Amino acid sequence: MSSRTVPDIVIGRLPQYLRTLQRMADENRIITSSQELAERLGISAAQIRKDLSLFGEFGKQGTGYDIHFLIEKLRSILKVDRVWDIVVVGVGDIGSAIARYQGFTNRGFRVAMLFDKDPVKIGTQVGNFIVQDSRNLVEAVQRAGIKIGMITVPSSEAQSVAEQLIKGGVRAILNYAPISLNVPPYVRVQYIDPVIHLQRMTYYLD
Amino acid sequence: MSSRTVPDIVIGRLPQYLRTLQRMADENRIITSSQELAERLGISAAQIRKDLSLFGEFGKQGTGYDIHFLIEKLRSILKVDRVWDIVVVGVGDIGSAIARYQGFTNRGFRVAMLFDKDPVKIGTQVGNFIVQDSRNLVEAVQRAGIKIGMITVPSSEAQSVAEQLIKGGVRAILNYAPISLNVPPYVRVQYIDPVIHLQRMTYYLD
Repeated sequence: MSSRTVPDIVIGRLPQYLRTLQRMADENRIITSSQELAERLGISAAQIRKDLSLFGEFGKQGTGYDIHFLIEKLRSILKVDRVWDIVVVGVGDIGSAIARYQGFTNRGFRVAMLFDKDPVKIGTQVGNFIVQDSRNLVEAVQRAGIKIGMITVPSSEAQSVAEQLIKGGVRAILNYAPISLNVPPYVRVQYIDPVIHLQRMTYYLD
Repeated sequence: MSSRTVPDIVIGRLPQYLRTLQRMADENRIITSSQELAERLGISAAQIRKDLSLFGEFGKQGTGYDIHFLIEKLRSILKVDRVWDIVVVGVGDIGSAIARYQGFTNRGFRVAMLFDKDPVKIGTQVGNFIVQDSRNLVEAVQRAGIKIGMITVPSSEAQSVAEQLIKGGVRAILNYAPISLNVPPYVRVQYIDPVIHLQRMTYYLD
């Protein structure tokens, strides 16, 4: 099936399947079922079977899914069977946490560069990185061919940083600033804003 | 309309509408339209009108939405017309960043307590808080009547922390550990895992 015809909402569930399968593999498990995945994920077994069937035949009725095979397939579909470099712009608390974050390993990503515009931060070491001057952002990103950026600057600067990243060739942005970015249609943006998640839950609280 | 009959996916979009409207209010704007909201959010105008219509009549054909009125309505629907206390468990990089995060203000939340089990961290100051001993977590949360918890401990400890939070009366959990939690049906969980967002974008990269 051509990639363009799979709904984005299905693509959004694949990383969750992958994370759960990788956890099962860590537990030395070999085989799983759509029912077990459903229980762990809170998504119906029918939905999981339907999603996976869009990409081929991964399991047989009654025998379940081979965990390692399905992991390899999902890694290939999501293109995380390689390692993507990430540029992080903004070395505040969140940017620093990301620079030291261990959770990227074996999941397809590594932080490659850190930028900030604050002269006090430029040249200092954070995690394994020397903070670079934001004035060199466009050129450095372009030269390194980096396609993924994380924005961890204040909201007031996020749009301008996004534009520089895109100018440097970035095509996927993970934005931690609580503001919607205007980007061309060939650029993907995802948002991390804890308040959005919290507000989705308070609706259900008494 | 009864809260139980609104699909959760609609509830999930309301905080995005609220954030965008609050930004417009910050820009001293008075009136907006579903078309303008659609452009800013990347959600169709028809979807926005349909979502909002589930909660009443907020705009008239041709005159648009009163931004402040709609903000107040959404704050009331999402129950963020009050301030919810949050307990944060795990004072690593991410927990510390959350303790100092300015983005909760005026959005319905404040961090109220920080816990860690590490004797080196207990008693130290992070942001405006003294880190408390995790052994006192259940009792302290219960006494304070806190309903919302954030988990920023390593994956291996996340399930156990979740169980303590729930024992203390927490009913909504924002989990930063890259692991799915098993919780009773009366507890809501949302996840923040940057890799899930990144993997959703690499699918589209060349």
